[in-house]
Amino acid sequence: MRAADSTQRVPGLGVVALRTLLGKPWGSPIQVGPTRYAALPPRLADHLKLLDRKAQIILPKDAARIVFEAGLRSGSRVAEAGVGSGALTLALAYFVGPAGRVYAYDVRQDHLDVGRRNVARAGLEDVVEFRLGDVTKEVVEHDLDAFVLDVPEPEAAVAAAQTHLRPGGVFAAYTPLVVQMERAALALRARGFVEVRSLETLERGWTVHDRGSRPDTNMLAHTGFLTFARRP
Amino acid sequence: MRAADSTQRVPGLGVVALRTLLGKPWGSPIQVGPTRYAALPPRLADHLKLLDRKAQIILPKDAARIVFEAGLRSGSRVAEAGVGSGALTLALAYFVGPAGRVYAYDVRQDHLDVGRRNVARAGLEDVVEFRLGDVTKEVVEHDLDAFVLDVPEPEAAVAAAQTHLRPGGVFAAYTPLVVQMERAALALRARGFVEVRSLETLERGWTVHDRGSRPDTNMLAHTGFLTFARRP
Amino acid sequence: MRAADSTQRVPGLGVVALRTLLGKPWGSPIQVGPTRYAALPPRLADHLKLLDRKAQIILPKDAARIVFEAGLRSGSRVAEAGVGSGALTLALAYFVGPAGRVYAYDVRQDHLDVGRRNVARAGLEDVVEFRLGDVTKEVVEHDLDAFVLDVPEPEAAVAAAQTHLRPGGVFAAYTPLVVQMERAALALRARGFVEVRSLETLERGWTVHDRGSRPDTNMLAHTGFLTFARRP
Amino acid sequence: MRAADSTQRVPGLGVVALRTLLGKPWGSPIQVGPTRYAALPPRLADHLKLLDRKAQIILPKDAARIVFEAGLRSGSRVAEAGVGSGALTLALAYFVGPAGRVYAYDVRQDHLDVGRRNVARAGLEDVVEFRLGDVTKEVVEHDLDAFVLDVPEPEAAVAAAQTHLRPGGVFAAYTPLVVQMERAALALRARGFVEVRSLETLERGWTVHDRGSRPDTNMLAHTGFLTFARRP
Repeated sequence: MRAADSTQRVPGLGVVALRTLLGKPWGSPIQVGPTRYAALPPRLADHLKLLDRKAQIILPKDAARIVFEAGLRSGSRVAEAGVGSGALTLALAYFVGPAGRVYAYDVRQDHLDVGRRNVARAGLEDVVEFRLGDVTKEVVEHDLDAFVLDVPEPEAAVAAAQTHLRPGGVFAAYTPLVVQMERAALALRARGFVEVRSLETLERGWTVHDRGSRPDTNMLAHTGFLTFARRP
Repeated sequence: MRAADSTQRVPGLGVVALRTLLGKPWGSPIQVGPTRYAALPPRLADHLKLLDRKAQIILPKDAARIVFEAGLRSGSRVAEAGVGSGALTLALAYFVGPAGRVYAYDVRQDHLDVGRRNVARAGLEDVVEFRLGDVTKEVVEHDLDAFVLDVPEPEAAVAAAQTHLRPGGVFAAYTPLVVQMERAALALRARGFVEVRSLETLERGWTVHDRGSRPDTNMLAHTGFLTFARRP
Repeated sequence: MRAADSTQRVPGLGVVALRTLLGKPWGSPIQVGPTRYAALPPRLADHLKLLDRKAQIILPKDAARIVFEAGLRSGSRVAEAGVGSGALTLALAYFVGPAGRVYAYDVRQDHLDVGRRNVARAGLEDVVEFRLGDVTKEVVEHDLDAFVLDVPEPEAAVAAAQTHLRPGGVFAAYTPLVVQMERAALALRARGFVEVRSLETLERGWTVHDRGSRPDTNMLAHTGFLTFARRP
Repeated sequence: MRAADSTQRVPGLGVVALRTLLGKPWGSPIQVGPTRYAALPPRLADHLKLLDRKAQIILPKDAARIVFEAGLRSGSRVAEAGVGSGALTLALAYFVGPAGRVYAYDVRQDHLDVGRRNVARAGLEDVVEFRLGDVTKEVVEHDLDAFVLDVPEPEAAVAAAQTHLRPGGVFAAYTPLVVQMERAALALRARGFVEVRSLETLERGWTVHDRGSRPDTNMLAHTGFLTFARRP
């Protein structure tokens, strides 16, 4: 359910009895106080906005790029760590399901619990296998299409990635600090990974008015650096 | 086949007789002059780099974001225009196949021909139906998940999108000029589309050296503005 | 007076009796609660941070570029409009004084009053002549080195700039909206101005820690577009 | 002498006998083949574009910010190192002259020679004292307003800056690598400098057409990081 007029963001204006929506087709208008809303099916971006959070979650600009660079689609098999709140887990599962699998590793049971709840809420629980364990040494799957890491020391997982990725499989690390990006890139090169490269993505919103347009006043200056490579 | 050492980009150093590669497993080393290469299966990004071009093609930073925002995955059904060189067509087909479909419209037969050749080279021809026609009035499919437009006047396709998208379906326009973004956004609002927003994505590469890291010297300052909305 | 340890920003921690500072040399330490401060002479950036505001003021990234492109230094003579809170007036006066002059036009007396007070507080009142009037038709000075405009319709001042600038003098407009930038640039070309160009500047802060560095999380995505040209 | 129509950049179209320009007022039109040019006095930005180069020179976006943050104007006294091609020397001299001084240090005589020639060509030779020597230990001036460094190891000059800056004087370092920025910032904090901060500036040009505007296709992604601090 979203505001029918996207320029009015007025949470808290009223309450909708959900049973009044039962049986109505998607797109049906709902009046809440002075504002007209529409009942729409949740999309991937909605699931990501609504999930329970334990920490800052990965943004669409970064998750989209990881999915694209790793070429993840139905049938792909991916190892992921750490799970955190499960935002990246959910995005990966969305694209690799129903035929593929995400093997989601985390050393903390509470992260796995939150991640599992968020993934289930999006109806993707059959696509993910949550594993309590250390991605640097406890991965058991082979011939994986990708290793996707949002951990403090992704360089420690390069050896495991070499063993468990298929030839041409993609290593992807998301790291907030420059030094983390450096260690990951140097470890990948030392191990003979190819097409090693690091980049950052920036997103700038625009405000469009009848009287003229301008970029939004604020933006995120930084989320994380992305480092990609392939197993030869 | 990629350079095993990604820091050496030396096209033209030598020639490889392709038959020497037949039967070898992916990842096999190949010596070309002083450089060691590895034979790797092409991934989505490789297909995009290698396709025949008639014009500037959409980049991963933009294509990835469109796929993500529209939530395109196996089974999704998408109308796309114009085809151009087929880069975006190929990317869309990669994610919606094998169960989904891309209905790729263009008013020029030569664009359709190039697009079809590029899509076939990536083995995705069964996922795309190429249609000679005007996306603003000749779309025949219904209940589509997305309308993806890389045309000079995307605002002209808003009415068609309203008719042919499912409720909650995503309209996405890629436009180089500010005024094109403005017209698309205003037309979407006028038609009652919700969650209308425009943004641009930027990508900045980094060079990682043992002695220190720095952003690359050059980057693309602009490709296109992205405008997204949903049908209520 | 600034925090001696820039990582501690603790306004409101205590009170300093200013008379205890009288007669002490610049740089003297001052203890306020647990924090050591240093008494330093205000610099240009300090004056800009501390001035009374009526609206968003121009930032160093933009003011610096205007001063540099227009080559404003001691002796330069500049017409400026509108005054607003006087931030840009103050910056221009800082660089052109003591030998130069800023002729600061505004159609609102209250803006002139605020601007005059802020400029006086920085000790630059002798460098600025405040004029109640319309910069598009009431400028009386000739052979000016620059016309600097922070007004909604800078294109309306192009004719006046042509009359009152010296040959080679610089026209500079700061505009939040794309359409304002467009109108200014097209009017300048139509009038035969040369070296017409528009640009935007972005600033990204970095956080340096012992354990690693990263860009700050947030940044301003937009302040204004800058359009420069020279009178032939 | 610049193109009167800035959209035509056609170097090599013809030759102008400079004596035909003697005695003509600035702004006079000159016909060269099909293009009309105008004779304009050089401004700061022109001097920077035309100087003899030994290496990449500092750009207006960075030089402008250094001048602004350090508050350099007529009468300011600045130590600078290294001289390189003299671009930054020239810019500093432009703003601090005629009453101020730039003390320009370099350990290489050939850099000093090129810098001196470029500064002289801009008519600023009286404002600069070129010194063959190491800025980390051979500065002789005291109570300087600023220390401006474009050297590989600016952290080595922090102690000298502490001795030779006036209280509140500004330390400014321009460094291409992240690790150089880190070392400078950490050394400044360790020495008790205040208001330590690092940032980078980006410039994005825009193309304005009758039919619509858009950012330029390319931009510089990186020049150098700027680190500023003040002596307490």
